[in-house]
Amino acid sequence: MNLILLSPHDLTDDGHVCVTDPRRLAHLREVHRATPGDLLTVGIQGGPMGKALLTELSAERALFKLDTLDQPPPPPLPVHLVLALPRPRMLARTLEHVTALGVKEITLLHTKRVEKSYWQSPELRADKIHQHLVLGLEQARDTQLPNVTLSKGFRPFLEQQLPHLLNDRRGLVAHPGMPNACPRDIKTPTLLLVGPEGGFIDWEVEQLLTAGCEGMHLGLRILRVETAVTALLSRLF
Amino acid sequence: MNLILLSPHDLTDDGHVCVTDPRRLAHLREVHRATPGDLLTVGIQGGPMGKALLTELSAERALFKLDTLDQPPPPPLPVHLVLALPRPRMLARTLEHVTALGVKEITLLHTKRVEKSYWQSPELRADKIHQHLVLGLEQARDTQLPNVTLSKGFRPFLEQQLPHLLNDRRGLVAHPGMPNACPRDIKTPTLLLVGPEGGFIDWEVEQLLTAGCEGMHLGLRILRVETAVTALLSRLF
Repeated sequence: MNLILLSPHDLTDDGHVCVTDPRRLAHLREVHRATPGDLLTVGIQGGPMGKALLTELSAERALFKLDTLDQPPPPPLPVHLVLALPRPRMLARTLEHVTALGVKEITLLHTKRVEKSYWQSPELRADKIHQHLVLGLEQARDTQLPNVTLSKGFRPFLEQQLPHLLNDRRGLVAHPGMPNACPRDIKTPTLLLVGPEGGFIDWEVEQLLTAGCEGMHLGLRILRVETAVTALLSRLF
Repeated sequence: MNLILLSPHDLTDDGHVCVTDPRRLAHLREVHRATPGDLLTVGIQGGPMGKALLTELSAERALFKLDTLDQPPPPPLPVHLVLALPRPRMLARTLEHVTALGVKEITLLHTKRVEKSYWQSPELRADKIHQHLVLGLEQARDTQLPNVTLSKGFRPFLEQQLPHLLNDRRGLVAHPGMPNACPRDIKTPTLLLVGPEGGFIDWEVEQLLTAGCEGMHLGLRILRVETAVTALLSRLF
């Protein structure tokens, strides 16, 4: 938690901040080892960042007085990430990685090789997803929550969503065996599609290419989804 | 497990392979859903890769007949990674990521901001480290085990090891706030140094720069060690 991310609920009427949830309180005590008088880095969800003075820290609450909040959050990556739904634990970690890296648009997609049971996982509940996004923002010192959409059918995604997404973005499908290597250091708004463990099936790749996406690969090594996504984002942008 | 990694112990005198450990047996049954007659991808530790025919699968053992093993493992990354020892769970995952990405030389280093207790963790036992390296190789289809060295003092590392390591390598220290951005797509043999959560202290950075390393940064965002290392390797090579 390199940033204490404040939600509108944390702000009191008199311009102070009152944090009461056990997770942030424990973190302030055990990791920051904070004591009243400390100046800590805070940010308002969706807003600016700056410093706040800790005025009280008890088992029940932490009180802050806001200093000037005049720092903008770091710029986002120009990417919409479409990720075949990974297994639940991998999803949790991947959401944290990509949020920390600056992704702001995430679509979780069903494909042939996604286990249907993954869609029933409690990790997909809005509050659980929110929790991982917040961890990513706190890690990277960012305040802009990513937008996560669930797309439970490949064909509806292909027919109804993909054409709009490709309107103003360069579509890139990461898939082993494609002839071209992953491009580097591009500035263009990009739609990045990443398959599940085991990959997209051939038909899915064909459909994505026909729809206007370019195929590309990351090399001979088969990477876990969380490693691959981080490696792709870092190489592309 | 995209590759069944065979150790010399698995090879029988008559040129067959006998796998008996519960982890690989469970994986063959539950993930590969293998049955006798299947042709599976195997590799010999430190040697070539190819196919093997599963001839028997019971609760106690799996028997294979080796086909031609004529594929070399994928090329390694030209890097020696010096990593400030992360906390144990992060170490485990980071070892898997960097092994899958092709790192072959890893030094785990003590620095000021490494908690001393981490050096007592069971995750540093040779058998535990070996296990994570094997998982990384099996994931990426590689057979060359990385070499992991523990360097429990910063000053001895600086004075005795670093000069040799920099003899034929470009030294790069990843550290927030350095003036230059992480270079991209370099081919040169590299010594990559990555600090702990909280970073190197100023004195450590100064010493590394004085010794001939170049400083560089990955951007404004503060990343977890496992995310940062993957992002660095993917951007550099």
